[in-house]
Amino acid sequence: MKALVYHGPGAKSWEDVPDATLQEPTDVVVRVDTTTICGTDLHILQGDVAAVTAGRILGHEAVGTVTEAGDAIRAFRVGDRVLVPAVTRCGRCGYCLRGMPSHCQTVGGIGWIFGHLIDGTQAETVRVPFADTSLYAVPEGVTNEQAIFLADSLPTGYEVGVLAGNVRPGDTVAVVGAGAVGLSVVLTAGLWGASKVVAIDTDGFRLDKALEFGATHAVRAGPGAVADVIALTDGLGVDVAVEAVGHPETLRTAVSLVRPGGTIANAGVHGSPVELPMQDMWIRNVKLTMGLVDTVSIPTLLTMVANGRIPAENLGTHSFTFGQMEEAYDVFANAAENHALKVVINQTGQAAVRP
Amino acid sequence: MKALVYHGPGAKSWEDVPDATLQEPTDVVVRVDTTTICGTDLHILQGDVAAVTAGRILGHEAVGTVTEAGDAIRAFRVGDRVLVPAVTRCGRCGYCLRGMPSHCQTVGGIGWIFGHLIDGTQAETVRVPFADTSLYAVPEGVTNEQAIFLADSLPTGYEVGVLAGNVRPGDTVAVVGAGAVGLSVVLTAGLWGASKVVAIDTDGFRLDKALEFGATHAVRAGPGAVADVIALTDGLGVDVAVEAVGHPETLRTAVSLVRPGGTIANAGVHGSPVELPMQDMWIRNVKLTMGLVDTVSIPTLLTMVANGRIPAENLGTHSFTFGQMEEAYDVFANAAENHALKVVINQTGQAAVRP
Amino acid sequence: MKALVYHGPGAKSWEDVPDATLQEPTDVVVRVDTTTICGTDLHILQGDVAAVTAGRILGHEAVGTVTEAGDAIRAFRVGDRVLVPAVTRCGRCGYCLRGMPSHCQTVGGIGWIFGHLIDGTQAETVRVPFADTSLYAVPEGVTNEQAIFLADSLPTGYEVGVLAGNVRPGDTVAVVGAGAVGLSVVLTAGLWGASKVVAIDTDGFRLDKALEFGATHAVRAGPGAVADVIALTDGLGVDVAVEAVGHPETLRTAVSLVRPGGTIANAGVHGSPVELPMQDMWIRNVKLTMGLVDTVSIPTLLTMVANGRIPAENLGTHSFTFGQMEEAYDVFANAAENHALKVVINQTGQAAVRP
Amino acid sequence: MKALVYHGPGAKSWEDVPDATLQEPTDVVVRVDTTTICGTDLHILQGDVAAVTAGRILGHEAVGTVTEAGDAIRAFRVGDRVLVPAVTRCGRCGYCLRGMPSHCQTVGGIGWIFGHLIDGTQAETVRVPFADTSLYAVPEGVTNEQAIFLADSLPTGYEVGVLAGNVRPGDTVAVVGAGAVGLSVVLTAGLWGASKVVAIDTDGFRLDKALEFGATHAVRAGPGAVADVIALTDGLGVDVAVEAVGHPETLRTAVSLVRPGGTIANAGVHGSPVELPMQDMWIRNVKLTMGLVDTVSIPTLLTMVANGRIPAENLGTHSFTFGQMEEAYDVFANAAENHALKVVINQTGQAAVRP
Repeated sequence: MKALVYHGPGAKSWEDVPDATLQEPTDVVVRVDTTTICGTDLHILQGDVAAVTAGRILGHEAVGTVTEAGDAIRAFRVGDRVLVPAVTRCGRCGYCLRGMPSHCQTVGGIGWIFGHLIDGTQAETVRVPFADTSLYAVPEGVTNEQAIFLADSLPTGYEVGVLAGNVRPGDTVAVVGAGAVGLSVVLTAGLWGASKVVAIDTDGFRLDKALEFGATHAVRAGPGAVADVIALTDGLGVDVAVEAVGHPETLRTAVSLVRPGGTIANAGVHGSPVELPMQDMWIRNVKLTMGLVDTVSIPTLLTMVANGRIPAENLGTHSFTFGQMEEAYDVFANAAENHALKVVINQTGQAAVRP
Repeated sequence: MKALVYHGPGAKSWEDVPDATLQEPTDVVVRVDTTTICGTDLHILQGDVAAVTAGRILGHEAVGTVTEAGDAIRAFRVGDRVLVPAVTRCGRCGYCLRGMPSHCQTVGGIGWIFGHLIDGTQAETVRVPFADTSLYAVPEGVTNEQAIFLADSLPTGYEVGVLAGNVRPGDTVAVVGAGAVGLSVVLTAGLWGASKVVAIDTDGFRLDKALEFGATHAVRAGPGAVADVIALTDGLGVDVAVEAVGHPETLRTAVSLVRPGGTIANAGVHGSPVELPMQDMWIRNVKLTMGLVDTVSIPTLLTMVANGRIPAENLGTHSFTFGQMEEAYDVFANAAENHALKVVINQTGQAAVRP
Repeated sequence: MKALVYHGPGAKSWEDVPDATLQEPTDVVVRVDTTTICGTDLHILQGDVAAVTAGRILGHEAVGTVTEAGDAIRAFRVGDRVLVPAVTRCGRCGYCLRGMPSHCQTVGGIGWIFGHLIDGTQAETVRVPFADTSLYAVPEGVTNEQAIFLADSLPTGYEVGVLAGNVRPGDTVAVVGAGAVGLSVVLTAGLWGASKVVAIDTDGFRLDKALEFGATHAVRAGPGAVADVIALTDGLGVDVAVEAVGHPETLRTAVSLVRPGGTIANAGVHGSPVELPMQDMWIRNVKLTMGLVDTVSIPTLLTMVANGRIPAENLGTHSFTFGQMEEAYDVFANAAENHALKVVINQTGQAAVRP
Repeated sequence: MKALVYHGPGAKSWEDVPDATLQEPTDVVVRVDTTTICGTDLHILQGDVAAVTAGRILGHEAVGTVTEAGDAIRAFRVGDRVLVPAVTRCGRCGYCLRGMPSHCQTVGGIGWIFGHLIDGTQAETVRVPFADTSLYAVPEGVTNEQAIFLADSLPTGYEVGVLAGNVRPGDTVAVVGAGAVGLSVVLTAGLWGASKVVAIDTDGFRLDKALEFGATHAVRAGPGAVADVIALTDGLGVDVAVEAVGHPETLRTAVSLVRPGGTIANAGVHGSPVELPMQDMWIRNVKLTMGLVDTVSIPTLLTMVANGRIPAENLGTHSFTFGQMEEAYDVFANAAENHALKVVINQTGQAAVRP
């Protein structure tokens, strides 16, 4: 088969590799029908993730079709259309039992293993370990081009932003950074009844998308942004501020937006220490949350997509065939200038369409 | 009457002042039978709290007797024995309605006003605003020398440590700093079923007290302390790490103790920014909480003291009469060398005794 | 002034009575600008509520203007536009402190006192006790004709149906009975992300209203209704079944609709014992909740109405002037034949209009 | 091997049967070292459980040693000491994912299958399906004679009584019925900080045991019992009333004990409809919960037993060898006259001892 192989920092190629095969009775093999690229893949290519070694097939998001199933598999059969989520779940360790497979102790202390510790989904086939407890059936009425964004982006915005942020009916929510994760917060904050959703970004295209996706206000990042956001509240700040960038400055912006008693939900990926104004924060009864996605919200999100409540397909702005994998990376790596959010990679390269 | 008056940084005196009087129909006047000193009072005396101006009577903890009640008072009568908590609650603003009077918007955006924005409790009488919604009746079977520690210390450890830390049955809890607040965490962690409580401190007296108060393990602070604590767990760290000191280094220690998915509950008072290792933290699904005490847990704590489940009186190590107020400050200001936790100041100067 | 006075079972009249006046420093007097009629008022008129004695002014819902304020009032001034909720809250008893003023111990063990234990709101003025902790300011952008339904109906559906039922994103909700309370469940279930809302009723007009108000499905009550509803689920039943009628049979219908692990939220008023099939229920991990409204959700609901997320005004189907009070009762008492949900009674008798 | 085989209503024998063997790659075989008898086993013998057919090996509680493991097993190895809980968990269905394996859809819609839908644990060996997601390792420091009561009794009291009842620190808890389940409530209510635990029973031996196990009060069932219990509260009733008998009358007693806003947690097994006084209940904001045990609390309970916080072994009053299985049934079937709570059946027939 063909797959996108990492060859060390800066080097990758779409090349011939052996087909994926069953190794354990709890495995299945999935033919990848649809995949996409994550910002994390770009970090890996820059050499930022030491655990990813040369020769690794990249990618941790897929929708596909089961082609082989191990002897222990009960929940899926050959031919089933399935969502392969970013996180693998053994289903029995303490973390899986409490709904936090992001720290599954069985698969290595971290549930994200595709394109990281084992071969990934930017390939024509992929081996899925612990498939019974990890895969999700895609219901009728949900297209591959919708489901693909439930493998990582949407659950990340929903779980690490909306759920960890403890959004409740009537709340005002600020989202610092309107990329794929920030926009996923915008798309899902309404599930918990947010009354106002304010997007903050430097980029006009992303702010337009935020308004299109359900934000009630868009604020251009800059010197007056904090005051502008607070002016949209009762003067005390927002109930929940989601950081969706991953820089010290944007995290401090989120901190400065939140009202006493509120929550700062950090969804960004940080590469360095952050100095926080604890002398101002400690007195304000705030909470700072952070974390990896668990993808355990996928059943809820699939239900809401199937019922027409979340137009997940809107995250896909560009489509490519598998053979255009490298071109897809080029477009995604220059997302701002290409007005790209997420790319869709499938057999036809056709733009995402509704069912 | 006599009261302890602040005269600017470093200056205070126990002197004659006018008696407290009713000013609003929602006020009562309380004769102070028992009071104590808080670490915050020492900060004020150092000039660290700008809002406290010369002439202010200090103190925010008292047990006493109602001597006058405003026309609007319904819940209390002259003669009632009452606990005056650190936090005043209007009972109608958004923060009071959600159980967070620490940010009561009516009394100034902060519920702590005694000895801060209005005259305090280190006095023979004190005016209590919003008395119906702020005072608590002291039940029979609870002594003044027990109740006094429910005005601030015990609720702080319980609310900002145990409750914000989300301790649950079976959890392992580490407490960094075994002063009055840290020991209050130790005394109350069992209310939510903690299985192990590990106290960490530099001071042997405090570690002994921690063990006496219910800690299962005591660890001397120092280079190997983090490893020692983690060795008491399954190797992944504690479920809840409470910071009860207020220094950048102890907060980072608490961060390094907590397991993925755990909570760092900051109960310390910080005076400067803190650099946090977000590059290691973001991936671990941890929460960092912080805040002022609300004192809304007082009814629960009174019940537990009355039922013999919390020996609150043990926090009192030294007793003084009102006339020895300044001596009491001296002992408390040098707590370590005096082996002092909290002082009790009352009419007799007798050591705290059980009912 | 004029007021609607109860004269024993079956007897009432709109007659001259003395104006409302201040009695306590915590009272205000409100000029009633808008009121409505509740099903409970009809029960009272039938003599079903023994605590209501002849001479009592009826009604427990109002929007109006403060005309006098007691000495202890801090949160409201003469001229303020306010919502008078069905429930009075002292703000200091154990029930008020835990957000359950429906059982306020200070005002009589039950928070509903207007038109019950004291004179009510179907009058030109009304005395409001514990006004600081009971009244709500009506924000700009919310009309009287919207706010009036937040005095009782909408919070009842939301609190006793949606909140007690623990609706969560993705849930399927069945509402047995599509009267004012059932339709209030329909209007607010989306605040917690219900994916499907199924209304069940015998009346076609109400089912049409349910669909107009956001129900995804309407099922005619009858022999096949339970099977019809379950067919809309995965075959196991709904997550939350709300009973909004108050009959043994409809409660048993709700019980039969709920899946294992689900909740039956009883919002109906019962007048007799109910035999429940515990032999089938105990094994299914279900919960049965019930209760009086607390009206503590009013701030959330006001926010959602002000932000255009709940079209509260749609509950009002008929409008009357105060002078037409008795005609309003006639229409409401025969709601089905008049296609009436709630009536609006105000100065002009004009139909409710959007701001 | 030998096993206790059901031969239709009233008939059972300890007889030779084929050894348990692996059937699926997700199975293990466990040598039963310790087992016990449950009240449900007595119901089965009376013919009350239609799904249990002649030839079935009874029992659903065991502690033992893994002797064979299927190819897909990763968490356990031959020789491991394991707890076989009453409930089997596939780990992937919607109910298992939400922590409610009592309704596991994969193993038949009900997680209790041992001695019910498949052969059980009152045997020398037992096949355990879905072993990776169902078994628990028994930690050092926990004896078989402690662990055996975590297979069903203790988790039932804890989950269906304490957790479903939502016991919180300071609460008063009444337990109607002080058999094995009621006493398990008594043993575990302190994990959530109950301030008073009141046991109600007709039997003096059981009331003595309740006091020995941590109840603060014991009340003899009878005409004055409800008043006696309410007199131990502030006059309004208990926060949580647990029904642990399974009769209409005891459920109504529990209903009459609970205060407004409280919870009635039904842990009893009901065989007939129950008439409930909904006309009095609806107005009181109470909750009625019920259900099968999930056994998901076992890790918490094992931790608490290992840390000396729950003396689980005290539930065992009589010990037998496997060869005395029928004698054990006789004693347990006449529990009251034998002063029996639970029996222990193991290789030696020695009374339970502490580690």
